Amino acid sequence: MSTTIPHWLSKQAELAPDQTAIELPDGYSITFNKLKQESQIYAKKLASVGVERGAHIGILSENSLQMMIAIHALSYIGAVGVLLNIRLTDSELNFQLKDADVSILLTSDTQQKRSETLEVRTAVQLNEVEAFMESAVSLAEEIQLDDLFTIMYTSGTTGFPKGVMHTYGNHWWSAIGSALNLGVEKQDKWLAALPIFHVSGFSILIRSVVYGMPVYLLDKFHAKTVHDAIIHSRVTIVSVVTVTLQQLLEKLGEADYPNTLRCMLLGGGPAPESLLLKAKEKQVPVFQSFGMTETASQIVTLSEKDALQKIGSAGKPLSPARLKINQPDLDGVGEIFVKGPMVTKGYFENEEATNKAIQDGWLATGDLGYVDKEGFLFVVERRTDLIISGGENIYPSEIESVLSALDGVREVGVTGKPDPIWGSKPIAFLVVHESITVEQVENYAREKLASYKVPVSFHLVNALPRNASNKLQRNKLLNLLD
Amino acid sequence: MSTTIPHWLSKQAELAPDQTAIELPDGYSITFNKLKQESQIYAKKLASVGVERGAHIGILSENSLQMMIAIHALSYIGAVGVLLNIRLTDSELNFQLKDADVSILLTSDTQQKRSETLEVRTAVQLNEVEAFMESAVSLAEEIQLDDLFTIMYTSGTTGFPKGVMHTYGNHWWSAIGSALNLGVEKQDKWLAALPIFHVSGFSILIRSVVYGMPVYLLDKFHAKTVHDAIIHSRVTIVSVVTVTLQQLLEKLGEADYPNTLRCMLLGGGPAPESLLLKAKEKQVPVFQSFGMTETASQIVTLSEKDALQKIGSAGKPLSPARLKINQPDLDGVGEIFVKGPMVTKGYFENEEATNKAIQDGWLATGDLGYVDKEGFLFVVERRTDLIISGGENIYPSEIESVLSALDGVREVGVTGKPDPIWGSKPIAFLVVHESITVEQVENYAREKLASYKVPVSFHLVNALPRNASNKLQRNKLLNLLD
Repeated sequence: MSTTIPHWLSKQAELAPDQTAIELPDGYSITFNKLKQESQIYAKKLASVGVERGAHIGILSENSLQMMIAIHALSYIGAVGVLLNIRLTDSELNFQLKDADVSILLTSDTQQKRSETLEVRTAVQLNEVEAFMESAVSLAEEIQLDDLFTIMYTSGTTGFPKGVMHTYGNHWWSAIGSALNLGVEKQDKWLAALPIFHVSGFSILIRSVVYGMPVYLLDKFHAKTVHDAIIHSRVTIVSVVTVTLQQLLEKLGEADYPNTLRCMLLGGGPAPESLLLKAKEKQVPVFQSFGMTETASQIVTLSEKDALQKIGSAGKPLSPARLKINQPDLDGVGEIFVKGPMVTKGYFENEEATNKAIQDGWLATGDLGYVDKEGFLFVVERRTDLIISGGENIYPSEIESVLSALDGVREVGVTGKPDPIWGSKPIAFLVVHESITVEQVENYAREKLASYKVPVSFHLVNALPRNASNKLQRNKLLNLLD
Repeated sequence: MSTTIPHWLSKQAELAPDQTAIELPDGYSITFNKLKQESQIYAKKLASVGVERGAHIGILSENSLQMMIAIHALSYIGAVGVLLNIRLTDSELNFQLKDADVSILLTSDTQQKRSETLEVRTAVQLNEVEAFMESAVSLAEEIQLDDLFTIMYTSGTTGFPKGVMHTYGNHWWSAIGSALNLGVEKQDKWLAALPIFHVSGFSILIRSVVYGMPVYLLDKFHAKTVHDAIIHSRVTIVSVVTVTLQQLLEKLGEADYPNTLRCMLLGGGPAPESLLLKAKEKQVPVFQSFGMTETASQIVTLSEKDALQKIGSAGKPLSPARLKINQPDLDGVGEIFVKGPMVTKGYFENEEATNKAIQDGWLATGDLGYVDKEGFLFVVERRTDLIISGGENIYPSEIESVLSALDGVREVGVTGKPDPIWGSKPIAFLVVHESITVEQVENYAREKLASYKVPVSFHLVNALPRNASNKLQRNKLLNLLD
């Protein structure tokens, strides 16, 4: 039976009307009561252009208060938000718009121009909505936890991106799992510099309305702004990825953060131990975590008491979650499987991928790891061949699919090359017909792929390394550079 | 779809194996890992005497570690615990044992003798179980939130007691609702001096395993022991009722509690404003609350930030709950209705009472109150005529039903008489045939009713006050004393 709870934003507006919900670096802030009112008005205005219960509404925007209001407005209508990565190319976006059956696209003003070239029935600028008439629509007073709330795309190891469906319950349980691990303290203020269109950023928005906690919202990560927010605006928790943690530690220099900072929640792939040791030395409380879009953000996290003893571990599965290592080898290493009410029920209209990923109620993460004898997870390899670059997931298979489509390209192999700043960057190896040049391939890549996915270099080779079954051995690609 | 989570005790044993789960005033304590191990062994031993999945198992015990272990053991087996009030008479207990379909009764050693006269197929002493063989039973690794976990009896305004069914989910959501209101802090330790057989005490046991928090467990309330636990054992939260709060404040004298004490959670009926003001003056952080067995403990609670501004209010509905005043009069006073995933789905095998209490998903509490313009609930009258005596609910109708059954008694009216220590005590007014004496009625009452329900005085009268429809006007009974 689906569980019903009061609408989470209305609830906070009732419990803590004057509590700050969102704080911006320019000093502007909005209370839960105001956020509710504005979101409800926004919902009525959106309804006037056809946003209705069950409709799939694309959101293409960098982080902003307006984007947050739009997301809450969708929940009041019961519409589904399809969160789109602004760094994608038109063709990547068109794939997702079509696949997710998006009827109306909401864009920030900076993204508005692009919407003209996108294939979507209706495109509306987020700040145009203010001028719309309010429609007499009935707004949700309650949330059914089994109802679909968002779709976010992830590529995975094979082929085209897949739309991860999140119910309200997935987001709700994720927030609760985090609360039971990190605690909920009355002075808490969470800094969101990660994109809201990723689940890592989105989940902060949800925690805000579930806990009644202020979020300090940045449009993107600036080391100085975050640094100042920790010191002057007393944010207590900051979500970071390896590259941003690195920048913050450099910025910090010899000084210390105030003890109001109680957690740097580190996601987005494994961190080098040297970085974790540096953080430890500077007494910066870093909590490693493991999660993915399918798990509605972190599902395994180190707790404070273990953070210093278990450097390099991602921790233990959060309170409502379970973890197992599937088919471990002699060293105990196998594929990480997770289970829990924060885990997606599947990919939108993609039964094949859903059945492959979810086995007997367990999500096969595709990542390899082992659990030590005290129960701590160590991730030894992120999803086979996954490249994590500054917190963004890049799937070699996706780049290979795109480049292979270019006439003259016979075979493509992509892998990650270690990068001192970004962790890793994609590079491509090509087997081509004589008729094509590296420049042509690169131009094609720039046109088709988000810039962070474009390989930093292209190498022409005679053959790609393949195993006996002719399967590409991506882990041997870098040897071709010698 | 029912939600599945890992078994909560196993989970804490995994997350925080060495964390204290239960601490006793004699200095003994047990970790979550040990508690899990002992509960699992206990489950296997209980299985050997026929405790099985779905069976209804009575528990008749004062608070003890063994009782806690037995309750967790039932959850590992998937059996249902029927929590029985040790203060009830044999005939009251027999009613509940039969009504709840109890097959096996577990008793503490002090209650063991009574079990001989109770009507139950098998009675087992809690500490005999240690000597049993372990049976090869499969223990639950997960909890289905929709599964039935406990049954606790409550009388309500009409006739016989009704068995309130609690699912795991009811208890789980109650714990989460409390966490989102009071916060979860790492130094938290909750003192349980309320009986575990009442939901007010039981809910502390659940919070312990949901939060991974130590419980300081007392067999019953002793002002000195609680006082010492606050000062020396640094308990941070204490659940109290009016009478125990009063005793604590007296004990406190002119001194202050350490600031480790962050919450006195006050339940079990309205508190006199003078008491709340006295607590305020002594800077004792009292949080008023409103709840009942049907809501799996508190469902409306004052939060810390409102505690001093809204003295006399029970607060706002907890995060997953809603509240409305049904059919308010001109002053806004009406019956309090509540809704949320912590609210019972109904009474065991009592469809009539269930349908009466739960209307369109809302629980009619029977209590009267109003909500002020900032959204705070003020309870103006607990369930019509309910007598709350030292935190125990006493229903006049139940006493009237029992006494009316005695030959020679024609009519009975019971009401509460203010009492400086207990808040209220029942007194009875009788219209009798000449053949019967007050002593006979009193003896009969002692035999049939738990001692706290036995009226403190019996008054022979010629007629009871009744309205035009001949309905007893209990609120006019005290006038008969003039």
